Amino acid sequence: MMRLWRGSDSESTQLPHETLEIYLANRPVEGITAETFAQRRTPLPGIKTLPKDTAIVKVLYLSCDPAMRVWLSPKRSYMPPVQEGKVMRCAGVGEIVHPAGSFRTGDLVWGMLGWTEFSVVLASKLTRVKVPAGMRVSAALGVLGITGMTAYFGMLDVGNVQKGDCVVVSAAAGATGSIAAQIAKNVYGCKTIGIAGGPKKCRYLEEELGIIAVDYKSEEGIEKGLKEALGGSRIDVYFDNVGGSTLEAALRRINVGARVVICGAISGYNRKDMQPGPYNYLNLISYRASMTGFLLGDYEQQYGTARHQLSKWISAGKIKYREDEVVGLENAPLALQRLFEGKNIGKVVVKVVHQDERPRAISAKL
Amino acid sequence: MMRLWRGSDSESTQLPHETLEIYLANRPVEGITAETFAQRRTPLPGIKTLPKDTAIVKVLYLSCDPAMRVWLSPKRSYMPPVQEGKVMRCAGVGEIVHPAGSFRTGDLVWGMLGWTEFSVVLASKLTRVKVPAGMRVSAALGVLGITGMTAYFGMLDVGNVQKGDCVVVSAAAGATGSIAAQIAKNVYGCKTIGIAGGPKKCRYLEEELGIIAVDYKSEEGIEKGLKEALGGSRIDVYFDNVGGSTLEAALRRINVGARVVICGAISGYNRKDMQPGPYNYLNLISYRASMTGFLLGDYEQQYGTARHQLSKWISAGKIKYREDEVVGLENAPLALQRLFEGKNIGKVVVKVVHQDERPRAISAKL
Repeated sequence: MMRLWRGSDSESTQLPHETLEIYLANRPVEGITAETFAQRRTPLPGIKTLPKDTAIVKVLYLSCDPAMRVWLSPKRSYMPPVQEGKVMRCAGVGEIVHPAGSFRTGDLVWGMLGWTEFSVVLASKLTRVKVPAGMRVSAALGVLGITGMTAYFGMLDVGNVQKGDCVVVSAAAGATGSIAAQIAKNVYGCKTIGIAGGPKKCRYLEEELGIIAVDYKSEEGIEKGLKEALGGSRIDVYFDNVGGSTLEAALRRINVGARVVICGAISGYNRKDMQPGPYNYLNLISYRASMTGFLLGDYEQQYGTARHQLSKWISAGKIKYREDEVVGLENAPLALQRLFEGKNIGKVVVKVVHQDERPRAISAKL
Repeated sequence: MMRLWRGSDSESTQLPHETLEIYLANRPVEGITAETFAQRRTPLPGIKTLPKDTAIVKVLYLSCDPAMRVWLSPKRSYMPPVQEGKVMRCAGVGEIVHPAGSFRTGDLVWGMLGWTEFSVVLASKLTRVKVPAGMRVSAALGVLGITGMTAYFGMLDVGNVQKGDCVVVSAAAGATGSIAAQIAKNVYGCKTIGIAGGPKKCRYLEEELGIIAVDYKSEEGIEKGLKEALGGSRIDVYFDNVGGSTLEAALRRINVGARVVICGAISGYNRKDMQPGPYNYLNLISYRASMTGFLLGDYEQQYGTARHQLSKWISAGKIKYREDEVVGLENAPLALQRLFEGKNIGKVVVKVVHQDERPRAISAKL
């Protein structure tokens, strides 16, 4: 076994010569398959040949987000598509092993690290991460990271949630949905309904989070289930992660002045054709309502406030969160599939296990 | 010829005994046909049996609006459907012939008068109308009425139009669209593009209103036409009266922070099935944009301001308008068809010709 890595505890740290990485091999047409991604070992640049202000980050955890499927589409969205042959784009947290800019060896950072063990990144593209005592580093990707902050700004700024509102969240057992629903319920005291698929997720919502659950996969179906859960109320804020018939069911029951927050549309991302927009979007006229999209990146100046607030709510027990951890960089494609199969509760993260941390039996297979 | 009416010039005014009215005979499934409406003569109540606070209005002009097709649908929208056997709901202006509330005989009023010669209405449902010198009474239905004010609030409040914005308006040669486009162009100085069908309407836009026109019926099509007209700009405000592929073409070219004003969707109103929502509504995410519906009625407290402002812009030559007048209450169904066939430029109004105003030859046919 080649020793690639010796740990980050001393100045004698020896940088690895190469990194395992997973790249886009064949752009998927519908769902992600075994052919979509492939792995390879790539040499890392020597320190002397590193471009200026470039850090090397030992990747610890990688985020798994529905938007990653959008980046695999050949069409430009808010980001250019990932090209075939290139390392899969992915947010992650890691530890600086070669410092640059204001970062020192050992600093914990967040950035678009990609599906790799070691990421070579411009220091200006990294953000220092602090995780409150008692929380795992991976929380910087979930409840205190992209997903938690997406829920925060989506519910507070775009949804403009107010005390007394009736709030519905789709994909409510997911990473973003579960936080969005709890902000509405436990911070604003709103009547809050979560839409999720299957009894396991619905039990999680009802028993662990105290959110009224509607199972869109049940025999009753989303229309009837939502109607019953609303019990005569109409929806003031609908936080949509799903699109399709779920969005239509919600639009059917909006209140005057409703805010429909378009966070995502996971139901359509794997489709070859484009998913139609909601047939009943003209309800926006009857109810003087709005449908608004947003991107987290626009709130960068307020990330600090959001993280601080979310941490406080977690300490106060107002927000609970779960992580669905997949172990091993090699399993990152499976983790993404898991998300699209709706198997996860909470945030899917990939824990990167480095050569030196592996039991011999596993590393020998590489 | 029975004398039904003697004029409103003196105290000796004799009220008519009956009125011609047009009612919904067969709810249309798709377009309006010859079977949709029928006419009848109905006795008017005697003055002594009139309910309290009820006025009788001699209808002068009736408004013709796309929303009327929505009221004919069996589904409740923001108003209940018109029932078969009932007089067609319609906004109109007329003259008080039997006073009630604060209204006096001869007052000019606006209200939901319906497709009738004489309307029996609660005084509280009527609004006094003043038309500036030099303007026809029918302007109270168009540029100073529902359509003009819809353009005003839709562009200013919902669209939040700003100097420097790039604005696109669909159905731009229509009653609402033409006013909305001119507000953007001549009041806010915006680059303004109007979408319309056919060379006649496009000439009207370009030559009479100075608006860049895109002919969605041209061989080039809406996609290419809009792209060329934009010439690299992206859309900040899109004022949509049309829906369907026109809305999709516009969503494809929105700018970051765009406001899509959902005023109507005439392209879908005659469809038996529901028209899909825009396939590319997820562009709202990429461009952090919003799609917002509105109803004029919510702005009732500001009608005075809107009418005053619109009148000023008309006097200053900043807003031009046209009326497409159809003569005779009997022709109201044809007027509505005209609108859906896209034959009109500007506001379609029906001039009601009363018995005593008719040449003998016409009235004899009734």
